[in-house]
Amino acid sequence: MPTQEQIRAAAARIAPHIRRTPVIRLAPAETGLENPLTLKLEQLQVTGSFKPRGAFNRILSAEVPKAGVVAASGGNHGLAVAYAAKVLGIKAEIFVPEITAEVKRARIAATGATLTVGGAAYDQARIASEARAAETGALLVHAYDQEEVLAGQGTVGMELEADAPDLTHVVVAAGGGGLYGGIASWYAGRANMVIAEPEECPTLFSAGMVGRPVDVPSGGIAADSLGARRVGELAFGIMMAQGGRSVAVQDQVIRNAQTWLWDRLRVVAEPGGATALAAVLGGGWTPPKGARIGVVVCGANCDPGSVVG
Amino acid sequence: MPTQEQIRAAAARIAPHIRRTPVIRLAPAETGLENPLTLKLEQLQVTGSFKPRGAFNRILSAEVPKAGVVAASGGNHGLAVAYAAKVLGIKAEIFVPEITAEVKRARIAATGATLTVGGAAYDQARIASEARAAETGALLVHAYDQEEVLAGQGTVGMELEADAPDLTHVVVAAGGGGLYGGIASWYAGRANMVIAEPEECPTLFSAGMVGRPVDVPSGGIAADSLGARRVGELAFGIMMAQGGRSVAVQDQVIRNAQTWLWDRLRVVAEPGGATALAAVLGGGWTPPKGARIGVVVCGANCDPGSVVG
Repeated sequence: MPTQEQIRAAAARIAPHIRRTPVIRLAPAETGLENPLTLKLEQLQVTGSFKPRGAFNRILSAEVPKAGVVAASGGNHGLAVAYAAKVLGIKAEIFVPEITAEVKRARIAATGATLTVGGAAYDQARIASEARAAETGALLVHAYDQEEVLAGQGTVGMELEADAPDLTHVVVAAGGGGLYGGIASWYAGRANMVIAEPEECPTLFSAGMVGRPVDVPSGGIAADSLGARRVGELAFGIMMAQGGRSVAVQDQVIRNAQTWLWDRLRVVAEPGGATALAAVLGGGWTPPKGARIGVVVCGANCDPGSVVG
Repeated sequence: MPTQEQIRAAAARIAPHIRRTPVIRLAPAETGLENPLTLKLEQLQVTGSFKPRGAFNRILSAEVPKAGVVAASGGNHGLAVAYAAKVLGIKAEIFVPEITAEVKRARIAATGATLTVGGAAYDQARIASEARAAETGALLVHAYDQEEVLAGQGTVGMELEADAPDLTHVVVAAGGGGLYGGIASWYAGRANMVIAEPEECPTLFSAGMVGRPVDVPSGGIAADSLGARRVGELAFGIMMAQGGRSVAVQDQVIRNAQTWLWDRLRVVAEPGGATALAAVLGGGWTPPKGARIGVVVCGANCDPGSVVG
């Protein structure tokens, strides 16, 4: 688990390449909840998700071989790695599964990265990417299970605490758990972490039940951002150490949260990007009285028209 | 022209009802411009535009008669007045022209306000609203040409300066000039104001040429937010006093700015909401070397899918 010092170092390393995303506060009257909400609008990050934080930190921490970098992704991480490679002037090969949304594929291809689409879900793309890295010697940039990646994602927590120092709870969506693991490492218990997962890809929930990372089905509307086959070892270890809890969210509740974000806030979020808020608005998690809640809106790589109707 | 003190008083008065909207900074590498940009994301305001600032300030500064409030609007101001009336438990009658977008009409109607659609453009709605106010005794909440409305809109400038104190230029879209007049009143020369107007509704530009507010055509894609027939007396007086300059922006350049906001930032803005940025990105205004530019993104009451393709 990355230390605060590692996360601060990551923040300094990636600062020239990422945006300081803002927060917005919503009063109880606006949400119908008893608690005020602070939303971290991380979907405004370059490439439309939090992923470049970890990608840049991993790449800038390493000696990049001539073969460049390789990554597997549901789409957002692949786009972040492809973008970072373009900015840094290195080669990138990205593997995505067939479920990856067309808008994500198109954005990856537009960076000039080599894009390979294959396999039903993220896990097949991961296997292909690892084989390719072994073959070419390229640097593997994992979507979630590397310390530098976690440290990069942890900068979301660092910024959130700076902008909203009084939070008691931070709600974050998880697939492989990179964003969760990074933010939980930053807070190190100063706020309670609430992990939101689609019912149809419950990696942390299942791992918590079984006591170790286990394979789960990865379906539903958020599968192309939260559809890891199993939680990362790093995130699992952090959840166990901190006693983090996972809340399952139904697809329809995620859709409702997307629509709510547009109707009330004119924010577009993809399903995975709205999942943390869905856990709060949809009642999957009931905050204790007096809780001051931070929610990370973490991605918007979707057709903007898809959030209504 | 409202004083800083009046704007501060407005901020205190409306604070329970409006959001403190955030800014985001874009480095030159992200825009291709030589100057850094700071965007004020005011489209995240309640009701999806800056308008409730002025509407709440006007209503909360007055004795509201039993007949309630009446307003004419291309849509955003009407929605703001209707929303404020709902929150404050008073009656509202809103007049909009036929060009008003369906999403705006639907949102106004959803507040429970009485909505009357009629006339080709904003000016006919304005005439109808004034007749109605005379008939019922309701409080007229003008879309731009009242001191309390300007003071409310001026709180956008107050927040922007607090979050980005080093700006040398602030770019803002204008129709009737309420937002411009309010922000210019706040800055009172501490930053240079740049007024962005669609080529097809150039109220301030024409008034500046002629030396007094004059009627102009009000067409083009931003007509339902910037389509006033002529600039307000208040905003005109401020422009004359401060030597403000107006930049004309073509419809296609506005469309490009909408697409840019989505592609680069995952921000949805309606045409009028993207017009200030369009003046900067489209080259209508060339900032001086070393300028630190603030741009207000001021509305997002459109179909979110309309910003792409």
